[in-house]
Amino acid sequence: MFEYEILAKEGRARTGIFHTPHGDLQTPVFAPVGTQATVKTLTPVHLEELGASLVLSNTYHLYLRPGDELVAAMGGLHNFMQWPKPMLTDSGGFQVFSLAQMRKIDDDGVTFKSHIDGSTHRFTPEKSIAIQENLGADIIMAFDECSDPNDRAYSQIAMDRTHRWAERSLDAKTRNDQALFGILQGGVDPELRAVSAAFIASLPFPGIAIGGLSVGESKDEMHAMLDVVTPLLPENKPRYLMGVGTPEDLINGVLRGIDIFDCVLPTRLARHHAAFSSEGRLNMMNASFARDPRPLDESCDCYTCRTFTRAYLRHLIMAKELLAGTLISIHNLRALIRLIEEIRSHISAGIFEKQAPVLLEKWSNNTQKSTKDD
Amino acid sequence: MFEYEILAKEGRARTGIFHTPHGDLQTPVFAPVGTQATVKTLTPVHLEELGASLVLSNTYHLYLRPGDELVAAMGGLHNFMQWPKPMLTDSGGFQVFSLAQMRKIDDDGVTFKSHIDGSTHRFTPEKSIAIQENLGADIIMAFDECSDPNDRAYSQIAMDRTHRWAERSLDAKTRNDQALFGILQGGVDPELRAVSAAFIASLPFPGIAIGGLSVGESKDEMHAMLDVVTPLLPENKPRYLMGVGTPEDLINGVLRGIDIFDCVLPTRLARHHAAFSSEGRLNMMNASFARDPRPLDESCDCYTCRTFTRAYLRHLIMAKELLAGTLISIHNLRALIRLIEEIRSHISAGIFEKQAPVLLEKWSNNTQKSTKDD
Repeated sequence: MFEYEILAKEGRARTGIFHTPHGDLQTPVFAPVGTQATVKTLTPVHLEELGASLVLSNTYHLYLRPGDELVAAMGGLHNFMQWPKPMLTDSGGFQVFSLAQMRKIDDDGVTFKSHIDGSTHRFTPEKSIAIQENLGADIIMAFDECSDPNDRAYSQIAMDRTHRWAERSLDAKTRNDQALFGILQGGVDPELRAVSAAFIASLPFPGIAIGGLSVGESKDEMHAMLDVVTPLLPENKPRYLMGVGTPEDLINGVLRGIDIFDCVLPTRLARHHAAFSSEGRLNMMNASFARDPRPLDESCDCYTCRTFTRAYLRHLIMAKELLAGTLISIHNLRALIRLIEEIRSHISAGIFEKQAPVLLEKWSNNTQKSTKDD
Repeated sequence: MFEYEILAKEGRARTGIFHTPHGDLQTPVFAPVGTQATVKTLTPVHLEELGASLVLSNTYHLYLRPGDELVAAMGGLHNFMQWPKPMLTDSGGFQVFSLAQMRKIDDDGVTFKSHIDGSTHRFTPEKSIAIQENLGADIIMAFDECSDPNDRAYSQIAMDRTHRWAERSLDAKTRNDQALFGILQGGVDPELRAVSAAFIASLPFPGIAIGGLSVGESKDEMHAMLDVVTPLLPENKPRYLMGVGTPEDLINGVLRGIDIFDCVLPTRLARHHAAFSSEGRLNMMNASFARDPRPLDESCDCYTCRTFTRAYLRHLIMAKELLAGTLISIHNLRALIRLIEEIRSHISAGIFEKQAPVLLEKWSNNTQKSTKDD
């Protein structure tokens, strides 16, 4: 269990299989985010149809509501939300630092107030692992501290704490049917990142996550940090770039040796009426789509593109019909999953480095809004 | 086309087939409401899976947004919303009287202001038919005036106007692939209802709708009006009771010779977290469901009941996740469609009158909220 089998390599890019109790994951893989035990507005049938294989859920949210003990009593997260394939939970650390109303950090853990009702709670590495064992995902995360990338002094403190918490997370773990991944930190400092990569790689984690990126630094800084850390990581463990990304981030990440991605972007954009397309990101409220008989993206094979016109999607949006969010979420998730499938096949064929500029060109208008957007 | 073939009769109840350009309708039938060219939060795949055969959409809403000309340019309503089976549009009359900000009625038609932007519009029988021809549903409705059931003098005026508008609707019709149904009115006055039934039955409509019920009168009054009118209607035309109903309304309506029903209740209740069940109507926010591992209704075959627990549905509601509305809508619509399927098979077997009290008992707690509700 939790072996990572590399099937093909090209430069730093790899394609492989990560074995989990709920099935094999083909990497590189993009995981839709189901923060509260649901990928917003979609059923598990939608997710299976659009080719999702790994779904992420958030420990902080589920601990607060409905509670990890309740999820455990209902047979665990897979059973609770009826997702039969692999799942991943984060450690709750990132949300404590970004969502909680108040937080007080010490070397032992973090005390915080719930963003829902202001009640006081405390997470430690041991508590985070206990919660994640109750939730029962296939891949769980060590408890970490994500620092402001531009504050080097604090980045060092947070990194050191993350390292001690990584060891405590390993010690706290009791289930052997969950893969506990370590998380490396270090802000945007190459030296700290190298230290963190070496330290986390030295511990017996079956996979390694790169935290603290896509949190406000530039794309160039993110790429530079990946260029520092992935060469220091063992080949035979999957690498997970947390909370990333856009279509371009996926391409650039795989080029630098990343195997696993997750991001709320596809579903969040969908709820704000924005769709990925090969023409660039489309704002589906735009009046130019009012009588447009084409699908969102003529090259897409998703249910939305096989079934509905842009005119209909725009009508749903203008009429404030929630089905719009469902249909655009299906498309946006399928777009990223199709991209990652294409990347996998390019690596297998040994043509990814040649095709990457073509893919980047095709998707370049999707990171920023398209010109049709205002 | 538009022949109504009766397959079995029992008392006044009938089961039969109404032939339309988009397929045969088995009656009695319950039509989910897709006001704005979408049954709220559901895809056409959901609707097919839950056994929907006829879908209603609203002329007033579609005329205002996105506009009937746009729907026509997109290939008509079936193509626009991708519903391949029979559709029905109402005349817009009821919404003008219930939703528009201002209305001024005269013998020729109604001038009103849009509830969306306050713009001024005018519906006449000719305009209503022209809009419905642009929309292209299989069953369309004559333009009518629905009066306050308790104002007899006004009910007579509105009924007389409805009769003249029925004739003008027939004259205005140009397409021969749409079945235009007449609508009878008359408030809660048995004499007016009898006059209206006889008059509308005398015109060459392939089906007859009963309007102006379920608008504030008592259940007894509604049943009394049905007892007056259905014996006066021709056997070989389907009868449509507009905007009704609850599970009990369906049973009581079929007993009195009704063939077609529509109602927003199942989807509206779902968005307010209420579910039909054989235990009575369930308020799924109730804390007693927090750890309830059972489906909404153990006897139900819908996707929601086959897949999810009450505990999960309650979690989605508490977490304000929109998927709750989708999943409960699937269940509530399936519950009514299963009920109508059961009624059809009872009529075929000649046991409906015997089974009706059993069905009424089973569903009696669903019209009102259950005691668990507060």
